[in-house]
Amino acid sequence: MISVEEALQRISQYAKPRAARTIRAADSLGQVLAADIQSDIDSPPHDKALMDGYAVVASDVVAGVELLVLEEVTAGDTPTKPVTSATATRIMTGAPIPDGADAVVMIERTELVGGDKATVRINADNADSGQNIMPRGESVRCGDVVLRAGRMIRPIEMGVLAECGATEISAYPRPSVAILSTGNELVSPDTRPQAGQIRNSNGPMLEALVQRTGSKAVNLGVGRDERDELNRLVRRGLEEDVLVLSGGVSAGVLDLVPEVLAANSVEQVFHKVHLKPGKPVWFGVKRDSRGDRLVFGLPGNPVSSLVCFELFVRPALASLAGQNFDSIERRTARLATNHSRHSDRPTYFPARLFQRDGQLQVEPLAWKGSADLRTLADANCLALFPPSDSEFVVGDEIEVYAI
Amino acid sequence: MISVEEALQRISQYAKPRAARTIRAADSLGQVLAADIQSDIDSPPHDKALMDGYAVVASDVVAGVELLVLEEVTAGDTPTKPVTSATATRIMTGAPIPDGADAVVMIERTELVGGDKATVRINADNADSGQNIMPRGESVRCGDVVLRAGRMIRPIEMGVLAECGATEISAYPRPSVAILSTGNELVSPDTRPQAGQIRNSNGPMLEALVQRTGSKAVNLGVGRDERDELNRLVRRGLEEDVLVLSGGVSAGVLDLVPEVLAANSVEQVFHKVHLKPGKPVWFGVKRDSRGDRLVFGLPGNPVSSLVCFELFVRPALASLAGQNFDSIERRTARLATNHSRHSDRPTYFPARLFQRDGQLQVEPLAWKGSADLRTLADANCLALFPPSDSEFVVGDEIEVYAI
Repeated sequence: MISVEEALQRISQYAKPRAARTIRAADSLGQVLAADIQSDIDSPPHDKALMDGYAVVASDVVAGVELLVLEEVTAGDTPTKPVTSATATRIMTGAPIPDGADAVVMIERTELVGGDKATVRINADNADSGQNIMPRGESVRCGDVVLRAGRMIRPIEMGVLAECGATEISAYPRPSVAILSTGNELVSPDTRPQAGQIRNSNGPMLEALVQRTGSKAVNLGVGRDERDELNRLVRRGLEEDVLVLSGGVSAGVLDLVPEVLAANSVEQVFHKVHLKPGKPVWFGVKRDSRGDRLVFGLPGNPVSSLVCFELFVRPALASLAGQNFDSIERRTARLATNHSRHSDRPTYFPARLFQRDGQLQVEPLAWKGSADLRTLADANCLALFPPSDSEFVVGDEIEVYAI
Repeated sequence: MISVEEALQRISQYAKPRAARTIRAADSLGQVLAADIQSDIDSPPHDKALMDGYAVVASDVVAGVELLVLEEVTAGDTPTKPVTSATATRIMTGAPIPDGADAVVMIERTELVGGDKATVRINADNADSGQNIMPRGESVRCGDVVLRAGRMIRPIEMGVLAECGATEISAYPRPSVAILSTGNELVSPDTRPQAGQIRNSNGPMLEALVQRTGSKAVNLGVGRDERDELNRLVRRGLEEDVLVLSGGVSAGVLDLVPEVLAANSVEQVFHKVHLKPGKPVWFGVKRDSRGDRLVFGLPGNPVSSLVCFELFVRPALASLAGQNFDSIERRTARLATNHSRHSDRPTYFPARLFQRDGQLQVEPLAWKGSADLRTLADANCLALFPPSDSEFVVGDEIEVYAI
């Protein structure tokens, strides 16, 4: 049986970024840039006031000096007169600095004198050359690369793209993901389960997990353990970039899934990984002229499904979308309570992560086992306990995955 | 001038959850429950196998014992025969445990003997009563409250709702947010700025910030400093739950915004807060029969806008959506480099947060001042430096806000 690391390494070989597309910058939030972005302008485009106040010659300023007001320049205007010694121009935040001026005195340190608004008194002892001025091109020069290929577009990057006039960009599209829950025991959430049945909770959970990554989720509902129906649904799922199945990958007699996948030219890459829960996880690839389609078979119980999604599917979706395969944030935290866990497999356990005394701490929950979805809902992370025969004790350093 | 804390306290008085609505559970991801959710079933609905294997009488099990196989029960089936001493039923994960059986021996520890598949040999030294069985109702009992009002619906909660048959739920809708960038100097990103002009980067950034909270963003574009146009746009913005303006709230002569807001019955709650950057931030409310509409006037420069969004708008949007007003995650981290910062105002500075040696550390960026959007784009948090006349040094504990 392969290790988690080996499984991730194999998945990463197939999870390559999808072909980049040119899209509107306005639609690019959450996507990854496929090409560098250069600015088409200096930013700011002119020496610019950072405060409302008066543009002056810095060396003029002594406490109480009175200056002749030449004009008023608001943001969006351009100055018409140069500022020379003993003169000043009223200026608003963002407006261009007039020629000759090399400082802005903030409005709160000035007062108009006389009734004609033509003279201003400066109530500051001095001014430094350059104060309250942002020089042209200080933020960005025309031609500068402002965002590199590979950069994730967050709200701030949306602002940078707008500033640089990048209205169309090249980006990696998010993958589309089909979700198929398999098993004769499953009924839809709006049905009352009869003897031997349970509601399909995996489908909605996996659909939401996919949506939260920003990818498109196509929920195919429940596939019963019946060859023709499974075949039809798997075929439909393979129209998307990724097919995530839950259930049907353990050793049960009706576990038709691997067989149906093989009949659809999906080649198995691995089956079973050394971890708990989630050991029966299955991974395969359909390779043809349309490109690689990735297929994950997750164990049917909800907690195993969640663990396997977080460990294996999430990095694959990130990589398909142009992010680093290993861009998932892994942190360590100190154990807040003793925890008894004897297993020869690395175990992912629902837990609560919090900060106390400036330190990240993690407390495993009173979890009743793999189908205990309610306790899982109190978790905000999975804590990874390595194989061990002994107790884990308060203060032990534990790897955690936020969920 | 009021403090950040005082400003937040005043905003929280007006930012109350919107009226709850009944919606499809399938559409509820990211919303907050307005009523408790009770389960309509026991979960699991029957004692259930946690492994593929054989359901047996635990006390029968000694190494090498051979048991008569009664039948095969797959998930979705119901057993037809009770298991008695010296017999076993082949059982698949998730299937109901037959009467009489009190343990499941995993398939890997068994082998069929004879050609008729009617006898199984158990290769385990013993079995504990209850092993590999999840008892009926262990996860949830019928009538149990499984999710409390106030709970945010994440992917796991989507699974719990499905499991409990909650297909329609009562939830707080996300607020809708209008965004209006003001200033004569602003041109849209697809326009080449002329002298004195800059592109509107705030609008796209704020729109994305709002979208990321899960709220609906209505971007009204650029409003020039002209009364009739501003009035029309403000009126349109007040059709949404929240109106976020950027620009037009400092002391400039053309700052018409407060006047136009007053004309639209928006009452000022506060103007100016003791912080840096973002001091000129404005907050007001329009109260009428349609309920309170919140109006934020953010300073025009992008970094001030971002800081004020994170500090003031984000908690308000959370609260309107039924989350705690103070649900924004604030963490502390140790300063990774010395940082010189002299200010009488608390200062929010772009920084990078990372974990090193099991400790959260924060490194302020080489930020050139408030319009330096490119450096800001390298930040993943804002570091809060309290008012100080002295150096901050490596190891100092600093409050940080993830962005």
